[in-house]
Amino acid sequence: MPHIRLPEGVPGIRGPMMFRPETAGPLNELADVLLHGPHTLSPGERELIAAFVSARNDCVYCQTIHGAIAAHHLGGDERLVSCVKQDFERAGISGKLKALLAIAAKVQRSGKEVTAEDIVRARKEGASDIEIHDTVLISAMFAMCNRYVDGLAAWTPEEPEFYRQRAAKIAAEGYAASTVGAGSAAEAAS
Amino acid sequence: MPHIRLPEGVPGIRGPMMFRPETAGPLNELADVLLHGPHTLSPGERELIAAFVSARNDCVYCQTIHGAIAAHHLGGDERLVSCVKQDFERAGISGKLKALLAIAAKVQRSGKEVTAEDIVRARKEGASDIEIHDTVLISAMFAMCNRYVDGLAAWTPEEPEFYRQRAAKIAAEGYAASTVGAGSAAEAAS
Repeated sequence: MPHIRLPEGVPGIRGPMMFRPETAGPLNELADVLLHGPHTLSPGERELIAAFVSARNDCVYCQTIHGAIAAHHLGGDERLVSCVKQDFERAGISGKLKALLAIAAKVQRSGKEVTAEDIVRARKEGASDIEIHDTVLISAMFAMCNRYVDGLAAWTPEEPEFYRQRAAKIAAEGYAASTVGAGSAAEAAS
Repeated sequence: MPHIRLPEGVPGIRGPMMFRPETAGPLNELADVLLHGPHTLSPGERELIAAFVSARNDCVYCQTIHGAIAAHHLGGDERLVSCVKQDFERAGISGKLKALLAIAAKVQRSGKEVTAEDIVRARKEGASDIEIHDTVLISAMFAMCNRYVDGLAAWTPEEPEFYRQRAAKIAAEGYAASTVGAGSAAEAAS
């Protein structure tokens, strides 16, 4: 049961977001820029970073929904998402994404762990400054989102199909459009 | 030296924010709602939570600037800020703020650590659901900001006077108005 009186039947981060729309606005805008908008990293790659960090933070809701969105973008490849969570250095992904995940893994613990060598590795693999910046901020953003969801004990559905359907909607519409406003209130009531 | 090519001479989180204004916008909007805007917790109380969490995350820039803003709001009482960072249960603050700091301390480590007893204690001290929600989200937001600043090795000035002056500006104008846009570029160049 959630720690505070959140709207009933609204899963994951959307409960707290509906409870406090003033903070939901900037949170969804940040997610749209980092995960959904135009970028040199594909939406699938960025969602893999989000799912990976959320798994390390042991947040069931976030790792499952962002894993489902990553899989959706990657042609339904849920196995690749599992491989990245378990051992990204041996997963079937690019050298650049491995180097970025190594940075994300350090930021998940503490920003101070990132070294000049981590950055050199990412640059050698072709990562740009924006890609390094956004990897650090995606990992940092999920340090926030995971604590937000679990710190309020938000409702976490168990059915994998829920996450697949929700993932398809976010992949198509983005975060702000699929989460906040009259649409989601109506959706929650239906 | 910062890990990526950030604008020179721009301290702390403002370097990465100037580098990536698309993410700076929602980050400052979130900070304004949680720390600066109208609230039943005073700006000084909310900035104390921010400084406390940043100290636990060992982020020198964030704990110093938010400690300075808290002190500014509290009539210049820098000693109280130090007491809260060192041992908040014995600091000269309200029972409600102590109960909220206890929640913030748990969220700093992991959202899962927050218990029903923590919430009961906060409610007994008079905390509302919005105050509990915002405490969780402030702590979570600084899990993000601290990792963002340190993960990019942003420049951290050493002079206390820099933080006092910057604190006065933020306390007066808020985050978005004092950070982003032509004003801050001009300020950085001056």
